[in-house]
Amino acid sequence: MSLVSVGTVAFDSIETPFGKAEKVIGGAATYICWAASYFYQDLQLVSVIGEDWPEDELSALQSRGVDLEGLQVRKGEKSFFWSGKYHDNMNQRDTLVTDLNVLADFDPVLPESYRDSSYLMLGNLTPAVQQAVISQMKTRPKVIAMDTMNFWMDVAWDSLLDTIKMVDILTINDEEARQLSGEYSLMKAARKIFEMGPKYLVIKKGEHGALLFHEHDVFFAPALPLLEVKDPTGAGDTFAGGFMGYLANTGDISFDNLKRALIYGSAMASFCVEEFSLERLKTITPDELKARVHQFKQLVHYEI
Amino acid sequence: MSLVSVGTVAFDSIETPFGKAEKVIGGAATYICWAASYFYQDLQLVSVIGEDWPEDELSALQSRGVDLEGLQVRKGEKSFFWSGKYHDNMNQRDTLVTDLNVLADFDPVLPESYRDSSYLMLGNLTPAVQQAVISQMKTRPKVIAMDTMNFWMDVAWDSLLDTIKMVDILTINDEEARQLSGEYSLMKAARKIFEMGPKYLVIKKGEHGALLFHEHDVFFAPALPLLEVKDPTGAGDTFAGGFMGYLANTGDISFDNLKRALIYGSAMASFCVEEFSLERLKTITPDELKARVHQFKQLVHYEI
Repeated sequence: MSLVSVGTVAFDSIETPFGKAEKVIGGAATYICWAASYFYQDLQLVSVIGEDWPEDELSALQSRGVDLEGLQVRKGEKSFFWSGKYHDNMNQRDTLVTDLNVLADFDPVLPESYRDSSYLMLGNLTPAVQQAVISQMKTRPKVIAMDTMNFWMDVAWDSLLDTIKMVDILTINDEEARQLSGEYSLMKAARKIFEMGPKYLVIKKGEHGALLFHEHDVFFAPALPLLEVKDPTGAGDTFAGGFMGYLANTGDISFDNLKRALIYGSAMASFCVEEFSLERLKTITPDELKARVHQFKQLVHYEI
Repeated sequence: MSLVSVGTVAFDSIETPFGKAEKVIGGAATYICWAASYFYQDLQLVSVIGEDWPEDELSALQSRGVDLEGLQVRKGEKSFFWSGKYHDNMNQRDTLVTDLNVLADFDPVLPESYRDSSYLMLGNLTPAVQQAVISQMKTRPKVIAMDTMNFWMDVAWDSLLDTIKMVDILTINDEEARQLSGEYSLMKAARKIFEMGPKYLVIKKGEHGALLFHEHDVFFAPALPLLEVKDPTGAGDTFAGGFMGYLANTGDISFDNLKRALIYGSAMASFCVEEFSLERLKTITPDELKARVHQFKQLVHYEI
């Protein structure tokens, strides 16, 4: 019944209008696992790091219930490094440095114990790598969710479509949904994307919330207006981790439960952006999470 | 107990990725009055038009309960004309033509019967003109709401602040809230703007919904994902008209009722964008409005 998460484990250097962080812990799979660990503790990680990765970060993950057998450690090599700078509006960013390092020839190998897991979260990576992971599963997971980005639409269209065809849930942003479908209306985009394979579509809109589509149903989770937003890095992955962690915890993939998962994912993302790196994400108490979810409920509550 | 609306009555030529409309009916006050008329029929209009304005558009407004004594008609002159083209993302537009015509020296004169109205909606105009209207009121209205835009922050800062100080509700978009307050966080922006005078702040985010702030409370009304979005022109004004019409109808300015007003305003705006000009806004049936408001409720409904 484990939740396997695949994605980058990286060092990030980030500049936002509210500060700077140099070579801090990042990576899609890191955010996904930390967020998921608040809901589910049978977690398995597939990724690759270099010899430079801090030991205490690995033991911290293990203490949250994350199995690291699928994490390749390359001797004498360096971990993936990304550096970016956010614009004043925080919705756009420029990539300053991308040092692939160990990621350049990443060939994921799933340990035997991962191959019958029920939940698979594919963080944003080369579609071919995501597909390689799916093909190593012995039994088809109950839920396969996949994150991707516009970059793969530009450089690996066919491979991307082949991968999308294999998943249940696709998570992308609004601009990407429009690019992928060729439709401006997100309602129409969802219909086109359902024809590509997925049964559920999650459209992440950052500070504008997230939409969940399924057949002819649509649900919207707002983003909470926050006093402090320091760094949006990892918010989408944190969302995905909370979302999948909640699904794995409840084992219920009805539309009604996916709505709740969307709210929990959004709540986790709202913590993530309050500090740089994983600072806030590592320290959430159960009471804080409960209070945050209550704020989400109140935000859209009215009687008519 | 009337609702006085002040703003432009204009011809628009509009191009969007979904079509073109040449010299069609537009203007902030036109949209405000049409939207408000679905909730309230004691409406009064303050604006100016030229001799070129179609008679049947005036009688259509009158048949919706709009008094036109405050609408100046200038013989031998032309009505205000605006032309714009929307970008592919529909969130940005370029102004192609602005022919002020009768608007160039617009000096609003409130008829005697308007001067004790309870509700005043100031559509986007020169802040000095908005202020001139407030100063002609004999008794302070129960609610003064004001729309404005970044342009006035750039060219008429002091006059804008003087006007903002006089109103209860300010409606602006998120970018404008950030510019006006100098704060990125909309929570902080709201607090700064409350220090400028208004007790309520509505932040319009177009296809991303709207936020309502009051003291330490915040409420979010989503925008409904639509199959067809043809033309966003007038959506903000339609929102304001529905919002104020609902307040005037209910006479209740509690936060709980303002939340409902926000939903009704959003519902009206969702109709507006489905067609060019006022096409859709003129034909909404009570059942359609009821069904639309139900869709808004369902969109964010979940049990936790």
